[in-house]
Amino acid sequence: MKVHKGIRTGGRSARVQKAVHEAVHELLSSHDREALTVPMIAQMSGVTPSTIYRRWGDLPSLLADAALDRLRPDDDPVDTGALATDLKQFAEAYLDETGSELGKTMLRDVVASGDNGTTMRCAEIARCRLAVIVERAQKRGQWTPSVDQLVDGIIAPMTYRILFDRQPPTTKELFVMVDRCLIREKAEKPKD
Amino acid sequence: MKVHKGIRTGGRSARVQKAVHEAVHELLSSHDREALTVPMIAQMSGVTPSTIYRRWGDLPSLLADAALDRLRPDDDPVDTGALATDLKQFAEAYLDETGSELGKTMLRDVVASGDNGTTMRCAEIARCRLAVIVERAQKRGQWTPSVDQLVDGIIAPMTYRILFDRQPPTTKELFVMVDRCLIREKAEKPKD
Repeated sequence: MKVHKGIRTGGRSARVQKAVHEAVHELLSSHDREALTVPMIAQMSGVTPSTIYRRWGDLPSLLADAALDRLRPDDDPVDTGALATDLKQFAEAYLDETGSELGKTMLRDVVASGDNGTTMRCAEIARCRLAVIVERAQKRGQWTPSVDQLVDGIIAPMTYRILFDRQPPTTKELFVMVDRCLIREKAEKPKD
Repeated sequence: MKVHKGIRTGGRSARVQKAVHEAVHELLSSHDREALTVPMIAQMSGVTPSTIYRRWGDLPSLLADAALDRLRPDDDPVDTGALATDLKQFAEAYLDETGSELGKTMLRDVVASGDNGTTMRCAEIARCRLAVIVERAQKRGQWTPSVDQLVDGIIAPMTYRILFDRQPPTTKELFVMVDRCLIREKAEKPKD
C-alpha cells in the first residue's frame, strides 16, 4: 500500500483532496468504519472512484492519509507564555484527536498501511509541532529538552497506551508525563 | 478479527498450536510475508486449513498470535545482580525481537489485527517480564520505579520508534532510556 506523498497545492488536485478527506471524516462520524467503501466516499465527495484509486491506491491508504490530515491543524500550538503549559495544551489536544475510539482507529490505519512514508509523516507532524513549542521557549530564554526527548517522553507513551492498552492515558497522567520530561532533564543537566 | 484467547494446555490442542507457530516462524524466515497463505502453513505444520481457520479465524490473526509467541520466552529475564543491568539486558533482547524488519512486521500484525485482546497481551508480555525484574530488585532492597513507569520510559519509546520512525533505537539510545527511568525517579523522590 502506498499513500501519495507529493504535496500538490492549489487547483483541482487540492480541491479533490479536500473534498475526499472531508467526505471520509463525515462518513466516519456517522458510519461504522468497516462499512466505508470507496464508491461511497466518491459519491459524497463528487469525484469518481477511479480518481480515488489513482490517487490513493486503496481504501486503507486513503483512510491513513485522511487520519494524518486530522492530526495536522492549520494553526500553530497555543502560546501560553511558558514551556510546561504549552506542552500540556498541545499534549491534551493530541490526546483528544488520537485517544477516542475513532482516533485509535486512525492510528491503527496509519500503522496497518504498512507504508513507512505514512507512519513517518505521522511522527513528523508531532515532531514539527513540538519543535515550534521548543523554539518559542528558547526565544524566551528558557532551557528545554530536545524534541526527540519530548517525543520519547510524551508522544510515545501516549500512543503506546492507545494502541496496546485498553485505556488511553488520563489528562492527569499525561501532565505527569510532561512534568517528568522537564524534571528529568533538569536532573541530568548537572552531568553535562 | 479475533484471536483465540483461551489457554489450552497439553494434548492435541497444544501440539497443534506449537506446530502451527513453528511453521509460521520457519516460513517467515524463508519467504516474503506477503507470500504466506493458510494452506501453506497448514501443509508445513501437518494440520488441515480448516483447523487453522477454526482456531485463529484468519491469517492476520494467526500471524499476530505467532508474533506474540516470539515475544514470550520460556525463561525469566537474566539476573545480573543489579536493576540497571537487568533492565538493559531485557531491553536489548526485546529490541532484538522487535527491531528487525521481521519484528516490525510482527508488531504491525499485532496492531493491525484490530483486536484489543491481542494488543493487550502484547503489552502484558513486556509488563510481566518487567515485573519479574522489579520484584527481584526489591528483594535485593533496591529502590525501583513502577512497572508502568518502565513501560512508559522504555517499551513505549522503543515501540514508537520501530512503528513510526525509519529506525529503531540503537542499543546506546536504549540504554539512555533505561538510565533516564532510574535518574528521573530519583529526582522525583524528594518530592514525595
